[in-house]
Amino acid sequence: MHIDILSAVPDLLDSPLSHSIMKRAQDKGLLTVKVHQLRKWAINAHAQIDDYQFGGGAGMVMMCEPLEKAILELQQDGKFDEIIYMTPDGKTFNQRTANQLSLKNKLLIICGHYKGIDERIREHYVTMEISIGDFVLSGGELPAAIVVDAIGRIIPGVLNDETSALFDSFQDNLLAPPVYTRPADYNGWKVPEILLSGNPAKIEEWRNEKSLERTEQRRPDLLK
Amino acid sequence: MHIDILSAVPDLLDSPLSHSIMKRAQDKGLLTVKVHQLRKWAINAHAQIDDYQFGGGAGMVMMCEPLEKAILELQQDGKFDEIIYMTPDGKTFNQRTANQLSLKNKLLIICGHYKGIDERIREHYVTMEISIGDFVLSGGELPAAIVVDAIGRIIPGVLNDETSALFDSFQDNLLAPPVYTRPADYNGWKVPEILLSGNPAKIEEWRNEKSLERTEQRRPDLLK
Repeated sequence: MHIDILSAVPDLLDSPLSHSIMKRAQDKGLLTVKVHQLRKWAINAHAQIDDYQFGGGAGMVMMCEPLEKAILELQQDGKFDEIIYMTPDGKTFNQRTANQLSLKNKLLIICGHYKGIDERIREHYVTMEISIGDFVLSGGELPAAIVVDAIGRIIPGVLNDETSALFDSFQDNLLAPPVYTRPADYNGWKVPEILLSGNPAKIEEWRNEKSLERTEQRRPDLLK
Repeated sequence: MHIDILSAVPDLLDSPLSHSIMKRAQDKGLLTVKVHQLRKWAINAHAQIDDYQFGGGAGMVMMCEPLEKAILELQQDGKFDEIIYMTPDGKTFNQRTANQLSLKNKLLIICGHYKGIDERIREHYVTMEISIGDFVLSGGELPAAIVVDAIGRIIPGVLNDETSALFDSFQDNLLAPPVYTRPADYNGWKVPEILLSGNPAKIEEWRNEKSLERTEQRRPDLLK
């Protein structure tokens, strides 16, 4: 899979995409991610990519022309499966969307900054609008990194142990059960006996119970 | 405000916290963020901070001892208002939580990695568990960066124009209206006439209508 990212602050994305599992996915050749400075397609020698909003009010708006030019150029060697705009009024991102996107070949992610991008680009080019939650951030860069991470780690072959992702929260609409590691007694705080029993069937049963219990307590909406 | 972050992969957080608005908040002295490598409190010379989970199964669990030692040491010069653990089974982060946290003085954010942290630390030290959404990521670092960004930008004085954050999505449970910038006609795609009218009252009315309309279409749940 290849992902292009368009950003006015590409440096923000340096470290999130070059460590840990994202690095592994790219080292294995399973994922390529390229972050592009939108100013490369600026409208003038001042590297202008934004302007005041029509109708007045605080905050700059990212202009149509640089975005359109960037999209057309990046699309020359292959059409995007989705042109995604990260925006708080998009569809809320979840594991299902991550799973779906992990099956695509070529994605473009546009990171808004300031007040966002000109509405006309959303109408004419963007095919998918994603929000990662009901909160406001400085820009779309961290949300883009989140989406790339969520997608990248479930591309087959990225995680060493294929079973690992399957037992994560949300893959079956249940939260994960509690986990414990050594020592079995720490400060007098003990690990549940069952986990030390060596009985895989009982342990499996306990974990399912705890998953369900935790989901009922914390996120009953997931069980509906 | 001061925020300490505990992580097994602190490098991931290099760039998100050193650019744009996060940089501005720190340069102005309104926010200090310190990312700590958890291995500093490792249990042995191999820098061990995790171990296999009791009961078997894929994925490592972050141990009690390094976390407890780190918390106690970082708390020496002042108790934390909240010890936050980033986890997919935590309470879903939203603008209200961001607003509340922006009023605190000292926060600790623990980033889980691998299968998460030993349940006993959650029971005995963690005061708040935050999820940024229903999806699984490689670790809690990007979610921590999201929380710091959401909080940091609303600390008074961080944004240049105080009014800017007030008109963002979610501050009033409505999505933001569409925005446009020059040119008024691009590719034949025209900006709504009203925005060029120079009539602030009419423009305000139009924006409120569009906010409401967009919220009804995309996020009727916010209006309940």
